[in-house]
Amino acid sequence: MTQTVPVRSLTAKGERTRAKIVDAAADLMFRDGVAGTTVEDLCAAAGVGRSQVYHYFDDKTELVRAVIERQAELVFGGQEPHLAHVEGWESWEAWRDFVVGTQRRAGCVGGCPLGSLASELADEDELTRGILVLSFGRWEGAFRDGVRRMQDLGLVRADADPAGLATTLLATLQGGLLLCQVAKDVAPLEAALNGAIGYLRSFA
Amino acid sequence: MTQTVPVRSLTAKGERTRAKIVDAAADLMFRDGVAGTTVEDLCAAAGVGRSQVYHYFDDKTELVRAVIERQAELVFGGQEPHLAHVEGWESWEAWRDFVVGTQRRAGCVGGCPLGSLASELADEDELTRGILVLSFGRWEGAFRDGVRRMQDLGLVRADADPAGLATTLLATLQGGLLLCQVAKDVAPLEAALNGAIGYLRSFA
Repeated sequence: MTQTVPVRSLTAKGERTRAKIVDAAADLMFRDGVAGTTVEDLCAAAGVGRSQVYHYFDDKTELVRAVIERQAELVFGGQEPHLAHVEGWESWEAWRDFVVGTQRRAGCVGGCPLGSLASELADEDELTRGILVLSFGRWEGAFRDGVRRMQDLGLVRADADPAGLATTLLATLQGGLLLCQVAKDVAPLEAALNGAIGYLRSFA
Repeated sequence: MTQTVPVRSLTAKGERTRAKIVDAAADLMFRDGVAGTTVEDLCAAAGVGRSQVYHYFDDKTELVRAVIERQAELVFGGQEPHLAHVEGWESWEAWRDFVVGTQRRAGCVGGCPLGSLASELADEDELTRGILVLSFGRWEGAFRDGVRRMQDLGLVRADADPAGLATTLLATLQGGLLLCQVAKDVAPLEAALNGAIGYLRSFA
């Protein structure tokens, strides 16, 4: 993904330290929320000093933006292999099983790393929101391409709207992940994804 | 809704003061998140003293539980008239228009008052999570009853699964509200709800 947050020229060692800080911040913010994560927590978790954090990031807002990009990369990186190589209905079922399996392994804790950040930050400053828009847009684009591929394969009717279907798929996924987090059970997520795929199937 | 949080015996005046505190806390937590809301903010917003807050609530957790119930009541109260009196496809379209109109009037700020609380609190203590489960369960139940009513009216096939459809409708709504909050535009919400209704229509 094109980095929206400017990254200063760093040495290899500097890049590693910066990545260590972002990874630790991502873990903490996933667990405790952005508001619940302090620089002290971050320094302890990353094993760095306060001055190092401020060497790489002007302020918390800049760090948060890097965390959004990192989480978007991880979430998308996991699902992309399924969505980028759609070969038929079994690809959508494999995608569903991947998403459900990820939540099952996580004990249904935390919900979607990107969705949780979005819920907390979507009303903050416009640059932060812009990064969320780009991240979700990239994800939605992958769904749209997957639907188009189904059309090319002759498995989904040509009059189906890939954009509307992509929005519905992404929305159902996000809501399903939230219901899974609340229920501490993958059943609602699985039901919601079956519904989303069922909707796509209604255009078969 | 049956109150899960025990309410102490209060005089009429006491009930009004308690309700004023809960309303102010609900507004603040909707705007700033639960973690971002302090007792000081709450006292200033509700025009009460710290001792009054602690007279009605043992701690912040107890207050948060009352806020969840209050928001669930408000969110559900708005949608229930549509879902409790389903008379055909136009009832689902009226429900969609109501949800979209509410977000448009709010400037797409804040997302779902219940969904935002859920995202922040679903991994907290079990009693708080239980109240979220009950609140979402009641909402899901209303969707299920609406789908059953469509079956009774002969507008949806008898072999459709009302429980699975209800979960899909609630998930798509929750995800649609999140995408609307991120995009600051009702278009993704409207597209997602059209998708959810389209899925229901595929069982016509």
